[in-house]
Amino acid sequence: MTIGGFEDGWLGVPTRPGKPRQNGLTHVIDKGLNTRDIEGMFDTAGAFVDIVKLGWGTSYVTNNLEKKIALYRHFQTPVVCGGTLFEAVYARGKMDEFKAWLVEHRFAHVEISDGTIDIPRDEKLELIRDFARDFTVLSEVGSKDSDVVYAPYQWVEWIKEELAAGSWKVITEAREGGTAGIFRKDGDMRTGLIDEIAHEVPIDDLIFEAPTKSSQAWFVKQFGPNVNLGNIPPDEVIPLETLRLGLRGDTLKEILVPAPEPSA
Amino acid sequence: MTIGGFEDGWLGVPTRPGKPRQNGLTHVIDKGLNTRDIEGMFDTAGAFVDIVKLGWGTSYVTNNLEKKIALYRHFQTPVVCGGTLFEAVYARGKMDEFKAWLVEHRFAHVEISDGTIDIPRDEKLELIRDFARDFTVLSEVGSKDSDVVYAPYQWVEWIKEELAAGSWKVITEAREGGTAGIFRKDGDMRTGLIDEIAHEVPIDDLIFEAPTKSSQAWFVKQFGPNVNLGNIPPDEVIPLETLRLGLRGDTLKEILVPAPEPSA
Amino acid sequence: MTIGGFEDGWLGVPTRPGKPRQNGLTHVIDKGLNTRDIEGMFDTAGAFVDIVKLGWGTSYVTNNLEKKIALYRHFQTPVVCGGTLFEAVYARGKMDEFKAWLVEHRFAHVEISDGTIDIPRDEKLELIRDFARDFTVLSEVGSKDSDVVYAPYQWVEWIKEELAAGSWKVITEAREGGTAGIFRKDGDMRTGLIDEIAHEVPIDDLIFEAPTKSSQAWFVKQFGPNVNLGNIPPDEVIPLETLRLGLRGDTLKEILVPAPEPSA
Repeated sequence: MTIGGFEDGWLGVPTRPGKPRQNGLTHVIDKGLNTRDIEGMFDTAGAFVDIVKLGWGTSYVTNNLEKKIALYRHFQTPVVCGGTLFEAVYARGKMDEFKAWLVEHRFAHVEISDGTIDIPRDEKLELIRDFARDFTVLSEVGSKDSDVVYAPYQWVEWIKEELAAGSWKVITEAREGGTAGIFRKDGDMRTGLIDEIAHEVPIDDLIFEAPTKSSQAWFVKQFGPNVNLGNIPPDEVIPLETLRLGLRGDTLKEILVPAPEPSA
Repeated sequence: MTIGGFEDGWLGVPTRPGKPRQNGLTHVIDKGLNTRDIEGMFDTAGAFVDIVKLGWGTSYVTNNLEKKIALYRHFQTPVVCGGTLFEAVYARGKMDEFKAWLVEHRFAHVEISDGTIDIPRDEKLELIRDFARDFTVLSEVGSKDSDVVYAPYQWVEWIKEELAAGSWKVITEAREGGTAGIFRKDGDMRTGLIDEIAHEVPIDDLIFEAPTKSSQAWFVKQFGPNVNLGNIPPDEVIPLETLRLGLRGDTLKEILVPAPEPSA
Repeated sequence: MTIGGFEDGWLGVPTRPGKPRQNGLTHVIDKGLNTRDIEGMFDTAGAFVDIVKLGWGTSYVTNNLEKKIALYRHFQTPVVCGGTLFEAVYARGKMDEFKAWLVEHRFAHVEISDGTIDIPRDEKLELIRDFARDFTVLSEVGSKDSDVVYAPYQWVEWIKEELAAGSWKVITEAREGGTAGIFRKDGDMRTGLIDEIAHEVPIDDLIFEAPTKSSQAWFVKQFGPNVNLGNIPPDEVIPLETLRLGLRGDTLKEILVPAPEPSA
């Protein structure tokens, strides 16, 4: 038995698929890492870093973007710009320039969101269809505005539409601090909403933003070690892996028996 | 058009002056960075690091102070010890030893504050005059004690006096966590106070401590992309730059049109 | 006079013993540091890093455990796995495999705790006696469950029993966030409890978990610069040292006179 493909399993923790994995993804947020941080992260935790998001518009101002992209390519890990960059592009009417910039920088993935500005549904779906011809699309559902609360059936409908339009995965919004989207303003999770989504949509097609330890623990307890979780800070990759395997107090009692082999 | 002097402007974000800039300063707090962190920070975000403060008395206990100072000099970025070191010196009556130590370590800047201990106004102003003969002085106004609340006219008078005495910039206190000075105990900003100060004092003569994202966004929305902001954690330099340029959800709608050329 | 053995004392701050020190320990939590972080931490703050805990079960999933252990050995600093790993081992009945793994990885220290799962008192004491034959044992007292509150006399009895059974130091639980054990659920400290413990047990035999700045400042004010503090995040090692020496606002007024030579 192997854990993440690199360690023996004398402790009998749940099995996790190795990279590149189809589920149990850890989607990491890079809000300004330097190249030393990146090298260090892969040395210590690379087996658990599945995809990296350059948060919101940080890629546009990073001094050493070329080096960072090259480094992530070296570690064979996809990198994608945050959805807010897409929204800034949309708001300024610079979609063609954006595509050219993505190609020039060899981004194979793109995130399409409408959490801050309003994009008509039809237009968002058309944009997903359009980008999906040349890129792997992650689309995001849910508002960044903590006062905006949508009903579960609405979330489900949107997610299904976006998957049908060509999204590889749909991300459920939580904001960096866990205060909007699938979270309430006060940080509590909308657990009924999440259960409804998971009941209607294949769980592997979703990435749940889970920026806090308590939310990560909740998802692992609810959906098991191989749930896809997003917006994980770089220094929380190892801690999240321990939550998945029941090696932290928060999930120790729940994850005691070896899990079945993952489906993929 | 260039952004910070290093990237093309296909997205049409506001123009920012290059280094060394006279306004739009990002004043970074180093509370114990190691040399690898520093090298990494300048590689990724150096174009936006204008001045670095070695927080409170950390410089006195840092194991590798000489190396750190040399590294900041290499990156042509001023470094200054935190005001609390000055206060500890004052409380112990070691002002001459302090000056000798500053010279020995080639500090060209000094921060003079009285946020923790009481220094009579006349004496503080005399100390500013004295240090201003040999150093670039940053002085700080406002108590670190969250129960101490001064009236706006008092802040304005003190700031004007300190600029007249020779301070290069006056820093408005916020504490590391944003809970005193220009912030209320509960973390809310004293926006009326700040507006009054900005009405009476040239904005470029001020550095507003803004340790939290919400306060940074508020200052950018209120005073534009080129406001001087202080106590920015190293890993928030890139995120702050996106706030300045409208590339993060918090300021995306407000910073949509290119700003006029900065005054300096 | 030397401070931590590496800097002159022109400022007249309290004297601290040098490494290896018997009291005034800073016990650092590593929840996934990479080798660059570790090298950097020792370059800047190594004089104050007395022992490093690989938090909870992180050691089991770390990709480069061998390199990390070798690096800590290079810096002559003991490293110990978190108590939750011990509890996961206990819950799975893998104690022999655990011991073999500790020996294989050259761990000389072990932490024994029961903060998450129930271990009968007699059995915990027997485990301490057993491990103490081959390892330096740190044992932990106090539940991680914030709803579990034990009386002070109970803490004192347990601590004395564990020291008698062979623990080198007893750690008082606080959780990473400071919300259980010697802390109340809302983050306030149980100061009466701590005073009672300190009255009954030699202070040098205890390591108080103090993950927050306010709790660290409280311990320094209460017990002086050379109190043993635990679960210190790596980037808080330098800040904690300034708290110990009165070089930060929180303790500046209290730590103004040079302390007597430490007992050890």
